[in-house]
Amino acid sequence: MVIVMQDRSRSKEETVDALHAVAAEMHDRMMRGEPPRMTLPVRSKKNIAFDEKLNVYKYGSKKTIRDATSLGSAHQLLRALHVTEFMEDMIESKKSSTLREMYYISEGWGYGKFGSQNESNNLAEDLEIVTGCLREDFKLRPEEDGARIIGNLTFQERNRRGEWMRINCRDDVGDSGYGVPYNVESEKLQLVEHDIDFMMAIETGGMFDRLVENGFDELARCGLIHLKGQPARSTRRVMKRINEEWGIPIVVFTDADPWSFRIFASIAYGAIKTAHISEYLATPSAVYLGIESGDIEAYDLPSDELTSRDIEALKAEKSDPRFQSQEWIDQIDLMLDLGKKAEQQSLAKYGLDFVTDTYLPEKLQQKLGLVIG
Amino acid sequence: MVIVMQDRSRSKEETVDALHAVAAEMHDRMMRGEPPRMTLPVRSKKNIAFDEKLNVYKYGSKKTIRDATSLGSAHQLLRALHVTEFMEDMIESKKSSTLREMYYISEGWGYGKFGSQNESNNLAEDLEIVTGCLREDFKLRPEEDGARIIGNLTFQERNRRGEWMRINCRDDVGDSGYGVPYNVESEKLQLVEHDIDFMMAIETGGMFDRLVENGFDELARCGLIHLKGQPARSTRRVMKRINEEWGIPIVVFTDADPWSFRIFASIAYGAIKTAHISEYLATPSAVYLGIESGDIEAYDLPSDELTSRDIEALKAEKSDPRFQSQEWIDQIDLMLDLGKKAEQQSLAKYGLDFVTDTYLPEKLQQKLGLVIG
Repeated sequence: MVIVMQDRSRSKEETVDALHAVAAEMHDRMMRGEPPRMTLPVRSKKNIAFDEKLNVYKYGSKKTIRDATSLGSAHQLLRALHVTEFMEDMIESKKSSTLREMYYISEGWGYGKFGSQNESNNLAEDLEIVTGCLREDFKLRPEEDGARIIGNLTFQERNRRGEWMRINCRDDVGDSGYGVPYNVESEKLQLVEHDIDFMMAIETGGMFDRLVENGFDELARCGLIHLKGQPARSTRRVMKRINEEWGIPIVVFTDADPWSFRIFASIAYGAIKTAHISEYLATPSAVYLGIESGDIEAYDLPSDELTSRDIEALKAEKSDPRFQSQEWIDQIDLMLDLGKKAEQQSLAKYGLDFVTDTYLPEKLQQKLGLVIG
Repeated sequence: MVIVMQDRSRSKEETVDALHAVAAEMHDRMMRGEPPRMTLPVRSKKNIAFDEKLNVYKYGSKKTIRDATSLGSAHQLLRALHVTEFMEDMIESKKSSTLREMYYISEGWGYGKFGSQNESNNLAEDLEIVTGCLREDFKLRPEEDGARIIGNLTFQERNRRGEWMRINCRDDVGDSGYGVPYNVESEKLQLVEHDIDFMMAIETGGMFDRLVENGFDELARCGLIHLKGQPARSTRRVMKRINEEWGIPIVVFTDADPWSFRIFASIAYGAIKTAHISEYLATPSAVYLGIESGDIEAYDLPSDELTSRDIEALKAEKSDPRFQSQEWIDQIDLMLDLGKKAEQQSLAKYGLDFVTDTYLPEKLQQKLGLVIG
C-alpha cells in the first residue's frame, strides 16, 4: 500500500555525512596552514536567475567567501561548527527544535553564542546551501502552523509512535480540516489516493471557510488548502508533491494587492530566501486565478486606495525577475493605474454565494477551461 | 452516547426572536412618536466590575443610549436593522459569515453601509449585549483559526453533513493535532471522554510542539492546547467546557511579559471586549504556571530588556481590576524592578528536555501539588 516516493530529503546518514563535510573542509584547510572557510552564494535579488531546466528562479553563480581572517567571520565559523554538532545530536536522539530554541541553546556555546535571532536563522540557511540538505533534514521546525486542507484526498502520516495513520481530508477531519505537519518528506507523509481535479490554494482563512461552507470542494471536485498568508515551506512542498505525484493542477486564489502577488510568486517560482531549494518547493505550473487587478473594475469590487508602501512594493516587483512575463507586467501596471487594491472577501458585496456560484466558475473556465457544476 | 450539555448558546428560534425584539423596540417607540433607540452598557475599563456570584469581571451598570436624534446615531440604528435582517437570513439558510464579509455585504445597504470595518465589529458586539445572544448564534465566524489540541481526550464534532464524528485528540489526528472549530456550542461539539488529569494551555507554537515531541501529554497525563497568542473565543470556550464538564483544572503556560499576563487574564477573568459574556468564556479557576517574573532569576533565563511599551503596559495592568490580587501586584512589580522579560523557549538554554524534565514538574508540584513521572 505504502509507496515511498522520491523526493529531495536526505536520509539520516546522508545528512550527518554532509554536516561532517562542513567540519572536514575547515579542518583540512587548517591542516594545510590556511584559514578555514565556507563558500556561499551571494544572497540578493541580483543573484537570482531563471533556471531554464528546472523552470524556477535559483541563485546565480556569484559567491561570497566567509573565512577566519577576521574576528567576526571566525565567530561565524565557530557557530557553524556548534550548530552542526547540535543538529547531529538531534538527528541521533530523534529530536527536533525551533530556530528560537537553537538560539537559546547557543547560550552555552561561549564565543559561539549568537548575537541575535537573525544570525541563527541565517546560519541555518547557509548550512542548507553548503550541504545541499534541507532544514527539515537538520530537524529544525518552524514556529508557525502548517496549512489546513479540506477535500477528498487521503494522506498517510507517520505519528509520534512511528505508526502510519490514514487520514481522508474530507471524512476523517473536523471543520478545521487536516493540519499539514512541518515535515512533509515521504518518510513522514505519503500521498495515498484522491478523487479531485485540481487543488485550490486560498490566502485568507475567511475565504477558505467560505468555500468549505459552500461545499465548493465537492461542487468543483477540488482540494482546498489555506495558505495562511505567505505560505510555510511545508505548505509549498505539499502542493508541489500533490502537483507532481498526482499530476493535479494548482490554482491560487488571493487578494489583489502587491503582497498577494508575492505569495503567488513564492508558490510558482520560489522565494529569494529559499532560492537554493526552489526546485523542491516551487510549482512552476501553478495558475494565478485572482483576484486580478482587472477584476476590481470588471466586477465593480469594493476596493481600498493603494498606500505608498503598496506602490513601492509594486514598483519593486517590476524589477523582480519573477514578474517579467507580459501578463504580470500588465497586472502590476493596471494596479498602479487604478491606484486600488481589493480583498477576496470583497466578492461578498454580491452575497455569500457569489464567489462559488459565479466568480470562481468564470475564472476556472477562463484559466483552466474547466466547467464547474 | 451523546449527552447534550447545557451551555449558553441559544436555539435558532430564540436567536431570531431576540433579533426581532431589537426591531420591535425601535418600532414601538416610533409608534409612540418617540425616537427609536438602543441602550448599551458603557464599554470601558472603568465600567468593568467583579461579579462575586459568577467570579469573573463583567460590565457594571453604566449605560449609554444611542437614539435617532442625530444623523450619525440614526445611521447606526439603520445599520443595526440591516444587520439583524442579514443574521436572520443566515440562520434560515444555514450559512455563516465573517465580520469582513458582513462589512462588504453592507455595500448594498445604502445609508446603512458601514464606514469602516471597526463599525461593523462594534455593532456585532452591541447586538450580543442587547440580545443576550452570542456572535456564534448570529452565525458570525472569526477570521483566525481555532486552537490545536493534543492529548487523550475524545470529542464528537458534527460535520458539514450533520453527521457526528468521533475524534480522539491523540489517536485520530496527525502531529498538528485536533483543530478546534469556531463554534464549540454543544450542538456542534460534544465532550465524550478523557483520561487526563489537567489541561495545559500554551502560548507559543514552538513550545506546544516541544511538549508534544517530548511526549509531555502522556508523561504528565494532560491535554495540551495551543493558544496562538491571545486566544480566540472558541479556544477560551472549549477550555471552560473542559473545566466544567469534566472537572479538570486548566493551567496556563506563557512567556513572561505584560502581554502574556493579559492572555492569562482573558482566560481566567475575561477580556474587556467580551465582558458581557465573561461567565461563558472565562475559567476563573485557571492557574498561571509561568513563566513568572521570579523565574527569570531563579532559573537564570536569557531575557530581554523591557521596552517602553512593555513598561506602559505593566503600569496599565496595575490599575486593571483583573490584576488586583497580591500575587499579581507582586508579579508585575517584580518585572518592573528587574526591567526584564523572558520567553517560554528560553528554557532551551538548559537543553530541549529541561522544560519537561525539570521546569514543568517543579511548577506543577508547587502550584497544583501534582507529582509528575
